[in-house]
Amino acid sequence: MTPPKYQICLIGSGGVGTIASIVLTKSGLGRVTAVLRSKYSYVSQHGWQIESIDHGKLLGWKPYRLVSSVNDAATDENGEQIEYDYVVVCTKQLPNKSPVTDMISPVITPSKTTVVMIQNGIGIENDIIKMWPKNAVMSSVSHIGSSIKEPNVVIQMGKDVSKMGPHFHDGLDDSESTEKARAFVNMYVMGGSSVTEFVDDIQVARWEKLLWNGTFNTICALMRMDVGEVQRSKGRETLLVPMMWEIWRIASSAGHHIPESIISWMAYRLPDDCDYRPSMLLDLENGRHMELEVILGNPLKLAKELGVDTPIMATVYKFLKLEEWKIDQKVLPD
Amino acid sequence: MTPPKYQICLIGSGGVGTIASIVLTKSGLGRVTAVLRSKYSYVSQHGWQIESIDHGKLLGWKPYRLVSSVNDAATDENGEQIEYDYVVVCTKQLPNKSPVTDMISPVITPSKTTVVMIQNGIGIENDIIKMWPKNAVMSSVSHIGSSIKEPNVVIQMGKDVSKMGPHFHDGLDDSESTEKARAFVNMYVMGGSSVTEFVDDIQVARWEKLLWNGTFNTICALMRMDVGEVQRSKGRETLLVPMMWEIWRIASSAGHHIPESIISWMAYRLPDDCDYRPSMLLDLENGRHMELEVILGNPLKLAKELGVDTPIMATVYKFLKLEEWKIDQKVLPD
Repeated sequence: MTPPKYQICLIGSGGVGTIASIVLTKSGLGRVTAVLRSKYSYVSQHGWQIESIDHGKLLGWKPYRLVSSVNDAATDENGEQIEYDYVVVCTKQLPNKSPVTDMISPVITPSKTTVVMIQNGIGIENDIIKMWPKNAVMSSVSHIGSSIKEPNVVIQMGKDVSKMGPHFHDGLDDSESTEKARAFVNMYVMGGSSVTEFVDDIQVARWEKLLWNGTFNTICALMRMDVGEVQRSKGRETLLVPMMWEIWRIASSAGHHIPESIISWMAYRLPDDCDYRPSMLLDLENGRHMELEVILGNPLKLAKELGVDTPIMATVYKFLKLEEWKIDQKVLPD
Repeated sequence: MTPPKYQICLIGSGGVGTIASIVLTKSGLGRVTAVLRSKYSYVSQHGWQIESIDHGKLLGWKPYRLVSSVNDAATDENGEQIEYDYVVVCTKQLPNKSPVTDMISPVITPSKTTVVMIQNGIGIENDIIKMWPKNAVMSSVSHIGSSIKEPNVVIQMGKDVSKMGPHFHDGLDDSESTEKARAFVNMYVMGGSSVTEFVDDIQVARWEKLLWNGTFNTICALMRMDVGEVQRSKGRETLLVPMMWEIWRIASSAGHHIPESIISWMAYRLPDDCDYRPSMLLDLENGRHMELEVILGNPLKLAKELGVDTPIMATVYKFLKLEEWKIDQKVLPD
């Protein structure tokens, strides 16, 4: 057996990140160093316990290497610098609290490492491209029902369906960005992930997902309502669908064309008794920071630049900033 | 001593209404029949216990007559119809739940009874004028720190400062509307109320109060924040002051000129550690219906007619409608 071809550093071992490290390892093409923070000591002793619709039961599973910090990931056991081919970021997107550029800088080799963002939101690639203008950047829009039970159990109930594609930029030939993204998608397919699709315009997929994340997530959070409650209360008609159109118009003005029919499909596909509580609501209820800036803040900045009117979205953003203020009153400083 | 000149029916015996019935009784000019619903049996036995900054301590106080329904108020002890000079409405304004016109119709004598609304909100007089086009209508904008402790204690900590004035309409000479309003204000002054001012344009006073009620009340309610929290979180700058300007622009377009300086005075007069919880927040926390339609709903209808842009206000209204939906899920049907 040939040794894995690619050095991969994977940061963020929640439900999404841990399944990603399984897929990449199983592909036989990637040697995964996973950065765990709070879970490091437990998982390095016991490994993960995985129950996965895609990968079955795995007991005591570990990737090639576990480390407790990105700094530790930067060098191998002999203290030699590792030149990573891919750095896969699966953390929450909190640009105001812990910018991804700060987080990953120890493991980035300029002109070499491809940054893969398996994260929510809009505009998340901009800071990376600015900081490392010769590196490839790609992202994934992932629909995976996966969650962690403390201390080391990962339960993946929904199949890992994702779209992946490069973020083209001036510092790199599009062909090179494409090649690196295709190689990563190939690993994903080899690793047995359910459905991984390479797309040329990943922005369209990101904006499509924002139609959901920017509306159900934010309205459920602000109102402390589950999806069904938003629907039964007519909040879907008064707030959610109009807000989807605001997002649609920003995307459209930015040149990303989403079929209009997606809006009614997305707004009406779940039953009225659906008790799903989106992640932003769970964050709020648990006093954790929300992904507000990449879900609403960045799209609103773009809307302003493009002159798109966003009355509901802008107001929801401001109210969720007050929720964030409340959370900040309770969270202890680092 | 001459008997009281005016027959008065007073509906709604919360903190505001009970103090009003004391003032009108003390004036010597009014014979007050007070309608109590839930409190009738206790108060008719024990009277009220009053601690008032304006009227001192009163034990076992009662107005001329107590009744348990508006129907009972319509006739005297001998079953004779009473032709009231004034019907004073001090209830919460819930046009969708219990319209004032339905509530007061048994005690209105067409072309005679003046309707006095000591209530919050905008547009509250319209239905009354439509229903009784030859009757005078007036309203009061009251600033009184008065509250009820169950079962019969009324504590008035803040002085009763109010502006009162007629709502002119086509069915009645302005001079007659003015005369009836002045006579009522005169009773208030005779009754020892702190500061009662007759104003020609009561709408200006109502819109001025709405600058507060429409913003602090609604934002505190939606965010479950006290006044100081809204200020410290910068919600005052991002949401509250812009919303005040939306209200100011509706008032201005409707011909009610409020000095612009009132906005910064009103937004910045309370200290940042103020823990005041406005009534709408208390309603929400206690699962009671809010005065949403007269505080935001009617002003928004007017804004639409006048073509005034109200992005924040309209969004806040829609979110509070969802809160109302939640309340309706818990309140038992009548």
